[in-house]
Amino acid sequence: MTYCIGVLLDEGMILASDSRTNAGVDNFAKFCKMTVFEQPGDRVIALLSSGNLAGTQAVIGVLRQRMAAEPVTETLLGARTMFDVAMLVADAMRDIEQRDGKYLQESDLSFNASFIVGGQIRGEGMRLFRIYAEGNFIEAGVETTYFQTGETKYGKPVIDRVITRGTQLADATKCVLVSFDSTMRSNLSVGMPIDLICYERDRFELTRRRRFDDGDAYFTSLTDAWIEGTRQVFRLLPELSW
Amino acid sequence: MTYCIGVLLDEGMILASDSRTNAGVDNFAKFCKMTVFEQPGDRVIALLSSGNLAGTQAVIGVLRQRMAAEPVTETLLGARTMFDVAMLVADAMRDIEQRDGKYLQESDLSFNASFIVGGQIRGEGMRLFRIYAEGNFIEAGVETTYFQTGETKYGKPVIDRVITRGTQLADATKCVLVSFDSTMRSNLSVGMPIDLICYERDRFELTRRRRFDDGDAYFTSLTDAWIEGTRQVFRLLPELSW
Repeated sequence: MTYCIGVLLDEGMILASDSRTNAGVDNFAKFCKMTVFEQPGDRVIALLSSGNLAGTQAVIGVLRQRMAAEPVTETLLGARTMFDVAMLVADAMRDIEQRDGKYLQESDLSFNASFIVGGQIRGEGMRLFRIYAEGNFIEAGVETTYFQTGETKYGKPVIDRVITRGTQLADATKCVLVSFDSTMRSNLSVGMPIDLICYERDRFELTRRRRFDDGDAYFTSLTDAWIEGTRQVFRLLPELSW
Repeated sequence: MTYCIGVLLDEGMILASDSRTNAGVDNFAKFCKMTVFEQPGDRVIALLSSGNLAGTQAVIGVLRQRMAAEPVTETLLGARTMFDVAMLVADAMRDIEQRDGKYLQESDLSFNASFIVGGQIRGEGMRLFRIYAEGNFIEAGVETTYFQTGETKYGKPVIDRVITRGTQLADATKCVLVSFDSTMRSNLSVGMPIDLICYERDRFELTRRRRFDDGDAYFTSLTDAWIEGTRQVFRLLPELSW
C-alpha cells in the first residue's frame, strides 16, 4: 500500500508521499514515490505514484526517456499547460499498460499505477490532478482542494477539518504530516521516510523539500505536541449532560 | 455499512452505534443496532450489532425467546459471567447461521453478523468482547482497550491518540462522538441517529443513555468546538524549518 496526498491552497501546494512498497509482510522495501521535474523560472511539476512499483517506475522511465528523444514541447519540460502534462503522463501510462497489461493478466494481475500530479507552469495558475490507472483524470477545484491515493481513510478526517483553500502553507504542512502519522500508526503498509515538498505560488522553483525518516526530531516533536494538544482540546470541549 | 465501538476504561464503559442500514444507495433505512439487557443491581449487558440486519435481528430474537423459554441460568439474564454471555451470543449466532446459511449461499451471500458485547455481572469486573461472524471471540485486555466494527478507519486515529484505560468517562464520551463525526463526514453508509451508553463501573444499572439525531444541539456544538480546537492546536504546533 501507499499513502500520497496533494493539497492545493491559495498560497501554494503541498505534496507528500510515503516510501513503503510491499508484496506481503516478508517482502517490503523503501522506494521514493515522489518525482519532481523542475525548470527554475519556468515550471515545477511533481508526480506522486501509487500502485504496482514496476508500473509506476516504467511510466517515470518513459517520461524521462521522452525528454531526451522527443521535441521538447511534447515532453514534461516543454508542455504548455499542466493539463497537457496530465495528458502526457496518461499517454505514458497507457503505453506501459499496452506493453505489460496482457502479461500481468496471465497472472491475474492488472496495471494499477496511478498518479497525483501537481505544479505550475509559467502562464497559468497552479493545478492539481489525480490520474487513474486507466489514464483518465480529474482536477482539484474550489470544493475539493486535495487528492489522496492509497491508504486514505485514517488520514482523511484531520485534513477535512483543518484544511481549506485559505489555510496557510505552514499550518497545512503540519496537518499533512499529522495525517501521515495517523495513517502509519494504523497501517503497517505505509511507512517512513516521508517525502514532502511545499511549493509557493508563482515561485517557479522548488525551495522547500524535506525527507522525514524514522526518529526525525521535528516529526516526533510535532506528533507528540499534536497528541498533547488534542487531549487538551477534549478536556475543554463541552460536557454532555445526561 | 455500520460503525460501532465499545471502550473499556478503568472508570466504566462506553458503547455506541450508528443506525444506518443500506442495500445500495437507493435502499437505506434506520435501525437501532444497540440492545441492552439490564437487571438493576445485578447486571448490565449491551450488544452492538454489525452485518446483515436479518442475521443480527434473528440472533437478538433468539436470545430474547430463550429468556422466556429456557432455565434462567442458560440465558443472558442468568449467565454467571460475561464470558458465558459471549458464549450464549455465539451459540445463537451459530444456530441462525445453521438455519439460514445454506439459503444465503444460494445467492452467494454469507452469514456475516458480528457483535461487540460489553457489560458487567455482579461478582466480576466489567468485560468487553468482540464476537466474529463464526462465533469465535476475543476479549479486550490491557493493551487493547476498545473494539470497533464496520467502517472503522476514519474514526480510529482520534481514539488511538486520546483514549487509554485511565481516560475519564466524560472525555472518552466526547472522543467517541468525535470519532463518529469523523466517520459520518467521510462515509455515507454510516448515519445518525447515534445510540450511546455510558456505564459506570460497579453500578449494575444503566443511568446514562442518549440518542443523537440529526441536528442534535449538543452534538453540533461538540463537533464545531472540536474543529475550532484542532485548528487552534495546528496554529500552536512547532513550525517546520526548511
